[in-house]
Amino acid sequence: MKLVNYKLKYDFALSRMGVMLNNNVVDLHQAYEQMIANVGAKESAFPLPSDPDTFYANGEASMEIAKKVYAYIEKNEPLTQYKREDVVLGPPIPNPSKIICIGINYADHVAEMGSEIPEFPVVFSKFSNALIGPEDDIHKISATKKLDYEVELAVVIGKKTSNVNKTDVHDYLAGYTMGNDVSARDLQKRTVQWLQGKSLDHTTPIGPWLVTKDEITDPSNLAIKSFVNGEIRQSSNTKHLIFDIPFLVSFISELITLNPGDIILTGTPDGVGMAMDPPQYLQHGDTVRLEIEGIGIMENKIIEK
Amino acid sequence: MKLVNYKLKYDFALSRMGVMLNNNVVDLHQAYEQMIANVGAKESAFPLPSDPDTFYANGEASMEIAKKVYAYIEKNEPLTQYKREDVVLGPPIPNPSKIICIGINYADHVAEMGSEIPEFPVVFSKFSNALIGPEDDIHKISATKKLDYEVELAVVIGKKTSNVNKTDVHDYLAGYTMGNDVSARDLQKRTVQWLQGKSLDHTTPIGPWLVTKDEITDPSNLAIKSFVNGEIRQSSNTKHLIFDIPFLVSFISELITLNPGDIILTGTPDGVGMAMDPPQYLQHGDTVRLEIEGIGIMENKIIEK
Repeated sequence: MKLVNYKLKYDFALSRMGVMLNNNVVDLHQAYEQMIANVGAKESAFPLPSDPDTFYANGEASMEIAKKVYAYIEKNEPLTQYKREDVVLGPPIPNPSKIICIGINYADHVAEMGSEIPEFPVVFSKFSNALIGPEDDIHKISATKKLDYEVELAVVIGKKTSNVNKTDVHDYLAGYTMGNDVSARDLQKRTVQWLQGKSLDHTTPIGPWLVTKDEITDPSNLAIKSFVNGEIRQSSNTKHLIFDIPFLVSFISELITLNPGDIILTGTPDGVGMAMDPPQYLQHGDTVRLEIEGIGIMENKIIEK
Repeated sequence: MKLVNYKLKYDFALSRMGVMLNNNVVDLHQAYEQMIANVGAKESAFPLPSDPDTFYANGEASMEIAKKVYAYIEKNEPLTQYKREDVVLGPPIPNPSKIICIGINYADHVAEMGSEIPEFPVVFSKFSNALIGPEDDIHKISATKKLDYEVELAVVIGKKTSNVNKTDVHDYLAGYTMGNDVSARDLQKRTVQWLQGKSLDHTTPIGPWLVTKDEITDPSNLAIKSFVNGEIRQSSNTKHLIFDIPFLVSFISELITLNPGDIILTGTPDGVGMAMDPPQYLQHGDTVRLEIEGIGIMENKIIEK
């Protein structure tokens, strides 16, 4: 199941939860009402929120109903569905309580950045001001001359998580998505803490959807790639993560309680623009394309602001 | 005006907005209804949210009404008011969209930490899982042996702020509060990014209230102190900030859009436990007391978890 946060184009309505059916977007709440009307009240004990913030805040309860709705529309044609070109997708989780990023987590990227293999995960953060949808433009402000891309597999928390064992982590996940941890290298490195180069407004595309965990059998074996203007830049596999997803979620949850909808960006492989010789930074008009096996593709244009 | 987030003791009700009147807590929404009943409908164009999250999300609109309510109860006895011992205060803003922290921002603290005066503000963050109320216990988990205190003046944003000039910053503030940026030094320093030692669950008291900006004439000249078990540890003045509040808010707003309720912790002066000879870390049963001129005092106990 691929869950999206969508709006109708040329419509100022609020963001709503949708689910992909073939290549169309089905409104999850409309399909839920259709299902209730046909299947009856026994399925309606818990309301299904139509907006993404409440949907994810309700955690597993929302996800359980969404699964039933999806099973229903796989068998019964939904009354309404929208073509991709008629909707705008936003970040699947627009306002997570936390966006946690892991740094230097692929051995080959550690080498190219001149770092050392860390003994513990390097944890930093972004704020939701940085998040944009999978089709939005990435803003480049004049304060940075060194904007760079980082393709990353992202994991999304499904229920409240504290002190979870590695072996139990899967139970606490909602699923996976993809992020471009766009980084202003000059701002990131002008002080000892990276945040000011990592959370610029409108720089971090997430998406195109949340793929529920049942669809990804092994998140530790996914091809992961990025391209700039069609030229391949990063090409690796999530099996090269230094700290894998069960380790990361367990590690973080011993320090910080995680909430449903929280996003963890798991780090980027080698091939970033900063490490090229000479370095190649993103410029107005460039297009960055990300691909992760089992998740999908995401393409965003850079525009000077 | 001192705004609080309170609950009645022995009551499982939700957190509500209150305002201090002498040493009592007056429920802001109840007082608002009393005012409307007496003054009439012309004051009620905008509803006053009773819960802190919505109150701060509505920014200036909430603050304008709160001021009118406060002026009303200064002249007219409120129907209900609670004694301090009958309420529990929470963090004045329990779920800010951002908690931004400034590191190494007092020259004398830079020296004791063996750092250098930074050319730009050092910006990092906490998540709201760390926040606790002004009377709550600070949790010390077994993963850290080096828990330390940091008294800090905090500034709270009043309306959406982007690219604001230093000279206009005051217009964008709601007011000030105080925070203890409790830091697990061992976790903070085991990787190059500090977050994992800065955002442990239930470690960061904020409060005791938000003091609206009209009550603090000069935030750049406030005595700031901390004590452990009654022994003075930090004693400085906010005039020693390397980057002052107008500079910090302007600087951040050029990178990151700030929302009403966002908190910026402005850094701590010298005298932290880590810099003592030998270092003195917080232990189960210790009490940390903070004082900032014009804000108030806040005292929290450390408990092993």
